[in-house]
Amino acid sequence: MRETIARILKFRDDRGWKKFHDPKSLAVSISIEAAELLELFQWMSGEEATRFAAASKERVSEEMADVAIYLLELADITGIDLAQAIDAKLEKNARKYPL
Amino acid sequence: MRETIARILKFRDDRGWKKFHDPKSLAVSISIEAAELLELFQWMSGEEATRFAAASKERVSEEMADVAIYLLELADITGIDLAQAIDAKLEKNARKYPL
Amino acid sequence: MRETIARILKFRDDRGWKKFHDPKSLAVSISIEAAELLELFQWMSGEEATRFAAASKERVSEEMADVAIYLLELADITGIDLAQAIDAKLEKNARKYPL
Amino acid sequence: MRETIARILKFRDDRGWKKFHDPKSLAVSISIEAAELLELFQWMSGEEATRFAAASKERVSEEMADVAIYLLELADITGIDLAQAIDAKLEKNARKYPL
Repeated sequence: MRETIARILKFRDDRGWKKFHDPKSLAVSISIEAAELLELFQWMSGEEATRFAAASKERVSEEMADVAIYLLELADITGIDLAQAIDAKLEKNARKYPL
Repeated sequence: MRETIARILKFRDDRGWKKFHDPKSLAVSISIEAAELLELFQWMSGEEATRFAAASKERVSEEMADVAIYLLELADITGIDLAQAIDAKLEKNARKYPL
Repeated sequence: MRETIARILKFRDDRGWKKFHDPKSLAVSISIEAAELLELFQWMSGEEATRFAAASKERVSEEMADVAIYLLELADITGIDLAQAIDAKLEKNARKYPL
Repeated sequence: MRETIARILKFRDDRGWKKFHDPKSLAVSISIEAAELLELFQWMSGEEATRFAAASKERVSEEMADVAIYLLELADITGIDLAQAIDAKLEKNARKYPL
């Protein structure tokens, strides 16, 4: 993932796009891409969505990538380590939902 | 990230939650969490959002983690390698937005 | 608005689409359309969005209509009077944000 | 609905909130409220959502009202007649999905 993140940031910087990347703009973009991912499954049941995802892996991958790219760009500009953020959240969730 | 992903899946499996995880349910959850992330910046300008994110790193981290956790769970059940999906999308984007 | 609502329901029923309209599917559709509305203003400042909306009234109208149609269809299947729901919420908001 | 709209605008103006209402901020707010509506039905099937909506009409009403209020405020500041926008969209949809 480390190399992938480096590629995302290089892509952004090669185009001079960092100046557009404040946390709100990126959160807006994450929401928009999340809705495009959801749109793939609109009107489907859970089972239909499972079959669709298996048959249309590339389309699902693309929409997931769009969400991930903006999320990793947000991590970059805020100086948040996403893996560490997830670990902290899992610990909090473990207290909320004990075994 | 590899260990973090293992922790996410263990958390899910320890609680028997995988059975609720079809692609549509997870896409719905990603959208909901993306909106909670966006809500942190509601009514702010880009500059205000930048200051808020610096001052409230923990809250921003948590909402980002929620999006990331569901996204990685979706990657797991669909068998999609997220880093590979991002690499492929960056290549596609590079053709769409050439230097 | 009464006649417009009648037109929405006739459109739906002429196509036999009511059977797909459970509250969750419509809430998913409202979220998707809300994101398409938001996408019109992606990367814009508030002032740019104001100018864009003035110059592109038809596109904004269309995306707003999509949100409104699903919302009114949700009101129909749940038996909720939207004007009454708004009045009740305004009263609650007035207690929360007193003058 | 006409009187309800007047109440929404009076509520906003009594608090001097119109100055925060550019189209992007309102579109952000519509997306956030749409996600809160969707959250009511998170992890439910369509049938479960139908039962939940019948049993929890007030909570569903409130979240629908929040979406509607922001949408009507957006209609106000953009000078868009929502009923007319819906009528135009239904005509377009009728051409797209003929009987």
